[in-house]
Amino acid sequence: MSPTARTEAFSDGVFAIAITLLVLEVHVPQRSDLGPGGLLPALLGNWPSYLSYLATFLTVGVIWLNHHGVFQRIRRVDRTIQWWNLILLLLVSFTPFPNALLAEYLEHNGFLSPDVRIAAATYALVFAAATAPWVGIWHHLAKHPELLEPGWDTTSAKHELKRSVLGLVAYSCGIVIAGSLPLLAVGLFLLAAVYYATTAGGVRIRRRRPGP
Amino acid sequence: MSPTARTEAFSDGVFAIAITLLVLEVHVPQRSDLGPGGLLPALLGNWPSYLSYLATFLTVGVIWLNHHGVFQRIRRVDRTIQWWNLILLLLVSFTPFPNALLAEYLEHNGFLSPDVRIAAATYALVFAAATAPWVGIWHHLAKHPELLEPGWDTTSAKHELKRSVLGLVAYSCGIVIAGSLPLLAVGLFLLAAVYYATTAGGVRIRRRRPGP
Amino acid sequence: MSPTARTEAFSDGVFAIAITLLVLEVHVPQRSDLGPGGLLPALLGNWPSYLSYLATFLTVGVIWLNHHGVFQRIRRVDRTIQWWNLILLLLVSFTPFPNALLAEYLEHNGFLSPDVRIAAATYALVFAAATAPWVGIWHHLAKHPELLEPGWDTTSAKHELKRSVLGLVAYSCGIVIAGSLPLLAVGLFLLAAVYYATTAGGVRIRRRRPGP
Amino acid sequence: MSPTARTEAFSDGVFAIAITLLVLEVHVPQRSDLGPGGLLPALLGNWPSYLSYLATFLTVGVIWLNHHGVFQRIRRVDRTIQWWNLILLLLVSFTPFPNALLAEYLEHNGFLSPDVRIAAATYALVFAAATAPWVGIWHHLAKHPELLEPGWDTTSAKHELKRSVLGLVAYSCGIVIAGSLPLLAVGLFLLAAVYYATTAGGVRIRRRRPGP
Repeated sequence: MSPTARTEAFSDGVFAIAITLLVLEVHVPQRSDLGPGGLLPALLGNWPSYLSYLATFLTVGVIWLNHHGVFQRIRRVDRTIQWWNLILLLLVSFTPFPNALLAEYLEHNGFLSPDVRIAAATYALVFAAATAPWVGIWHHLAKHPELLEPGWDTTSAKHELKRSVLGLVAYSCGIVIAGSLPLLAVGLFLLAAVYYATTAGGVRIRRRRPGP
Repeated sequence: MSPTARTEAFSDGVFAIAITLLVLEVHVPQRSDLGPGGLLPALLGNWPSYLSYLATFLTVGVIWLNHHGVFQRIRRVDRTIQWWNLILLLLVSFTPFPNALLAEYLEHNGFLSPDVRIAAATYALVFAAATAPWVGIWHHLAKHPELLEPGWDTTSAKHELKRSVLGLVAYSCGIVIAGSLPLLAVGLFLLAAVYYATTAGGVRIRRRRPGP
Repeated sequence: MSPTARTEAFSDGVFAIAITLLVLEVHVPQRSDLGPGGLLPALLGNWPSYLSYLATFLTVGVIWLNHHGVFQRIRRVDRTIQWWNLILLLLVSFTPFPNALLAEYLEHNGFLSPDVRIAAATYALVFAAATAPWVGIWHHLAKHPELLEPGWDTTSAKHELKRSVLGLVAYSCGIVIAGSLPLLAVGLFLLAAVYYATTAGGVRIRRRRPGP
Repeated sequence: MSPTARTEAFSDGVFAIAITLLVLEVHVPQRSDLGPGGLLPALLGNWPSYLSYLATFLTVGVIWLNHHGVFQRIRRVDRTIQWWNLILLLLVSFTPFPNALLAEYLEHNGFLSPDVRIAAATYALVFAAATAPWVGIWHHLAKHPELLEPGWDTTSAKHELKRSVLGLVAYSCGIVIAGSLPLLAVGLFLLAAVYYATTAGGVRIRRRRPGP
């Protein structure tokens, strides 16, 4: 087993569970609350739940893609990397909470009410916090290039450090936007995830060439 | 680690969790709702929950068998495959919702009421949507046969593409049937899963011969 | 990756989740239901929940140990094995339901009331059903010894088949006992799990000798 | 597959799920319970939930780091190790219960009330119990050094045995502290986890040198 295999397996587990628990917040309209024929409008009126599910699933999915990409470049993990990774997992496994919060308060009318703003800002805060461990990880790797796979060095680690600081700044701006225009912020989160996952600006998963 | 190992591990995690969360929708009859000796009839009256559990578990199980079969033919994943796989996982991890919806509304009398139809059609819609990523994946693989394991090429990918389009068409018909005759549709879903999993028309898991 | 690796990984995921979801049925006494200082008696009065948790966790744990032991002897899985394994996982991931049922009805006074008997018999029924796939698996392996690892053949498969039929018979008797003397049955389940896991009569995990 | 791989994979699954289920106890303030603008104070008033989440997540995370570290030194698992590991997993997967208990009762005013003390002592009791399997594991390994990886022997196993007895004693004291000064105990749990995870006194993950 490669030295990073079990850390990756445990992380994969946490990511997979956090991302799958999100569905528990998409509530089935209860029969007792509806008149006959009331299911279709109730399902359609639930759209903030689906939007929140979509944005959160894809954002966590992108954090996983990123995790995957980063750990491919790490040859072995020391205690500092383990610690930052644990903090990242703490935040990832916490995401069902802001997701539930957003779904609960977006469902309400008044998309600019103080409570919707607080819910959206809390949501953005958790995801902004989840960008911080990457700064810690790349800062450490830039100082300890011996932890990197061959072909990666301090220079490339510093480049990634810069990119992760940029991510932290961008998601911190997200907190301000979410506190002012909640729906716009959710839309931006969704766009950012799709952009990150599908374009060249996103994860560059360089794979070792398969042997001859 | 093989280049596809972590994607498979993460996917296995999501499948395993989604399929196991289904049981949370099989509700225990509460003592406070029953008279003495009322448990047996309450348990028997719960049959739509069990039916829904069975149909959903086996359908998701078959999607996993299929995922397993497909990834055995993929040598490495690029960003497009990762993206389609993420969309597939999004839909798979969403399945506890339509399952809960179906269990909640099938439990009601009147198997042809508008609400039961909407519930069943929503159920069918999610599973129809979950066939679409396979079309995307095989379309991409047909154009990039270098991503396939040796022994697989554009021709076999195009054959699989045709099969996955057929699956999409069949499950789309399922939406119409579910909207008209909900119970029949659930029965067909169940049959399709059993058929797919046990017959030659199902997954052909070709395994590389174990070394000498 | 060994030909059985992904089936084992997916199965491990389902086992791990089913076994961990059991805790959701151990309910925290709500503050609003208690007078001051009422927590300790409430916690102690909850003993049927803990007993049920213990019996179910250990029984599922033993099924996992058995799964582990069996798959070490299987060289590759064909469609029949996949199918029986899927049925086994269906039953394993269903276990949180009978566990919740038992905890709910054992909590009640009157350990011989009809409802407690039905709850316990349902519990035993699910676990008896979960022994059946092993009969199917060993029956198939006895006819297809080429699926077994070197050193295992039809004779040893037939021996295991006989043991799994015995297990099915024993757990079927458990249904009758549970329907008559619920608490005794839970105690027997617990004992059987501990016995199976700790004694020579249990799993014989034969490991290939680690290379020199 | 290494002889310990599947045991580690199953354990990773249980750890990952238990640690991720904790978030289900961080409750979203319900709109119907709040006046307009009431979300922010409600979120801030929820701090015992976050504190409990943090302490439990990090403690379980540290148990995982420890598990990782120990299994790196184990060459193969016999039935005794499997059994102790199963007991450990039983306790780990039970942790969402004391976590929920602590969150429910800490939320209440009166941090020295009998109920808060009972909740905190129960919490400490479960984690104290979770240190016991390590004593069992190291006791067994000290007697069976052939189960250890090369480079580890009875002497080093006895050293670890002493450390695990120390852990058992320390966490048992935690029960007394929690029963007297609940909040202090939670703070100590948090500190212990951070200390263990980040300092030299914690896990010493010695890795085999990567090949030349």
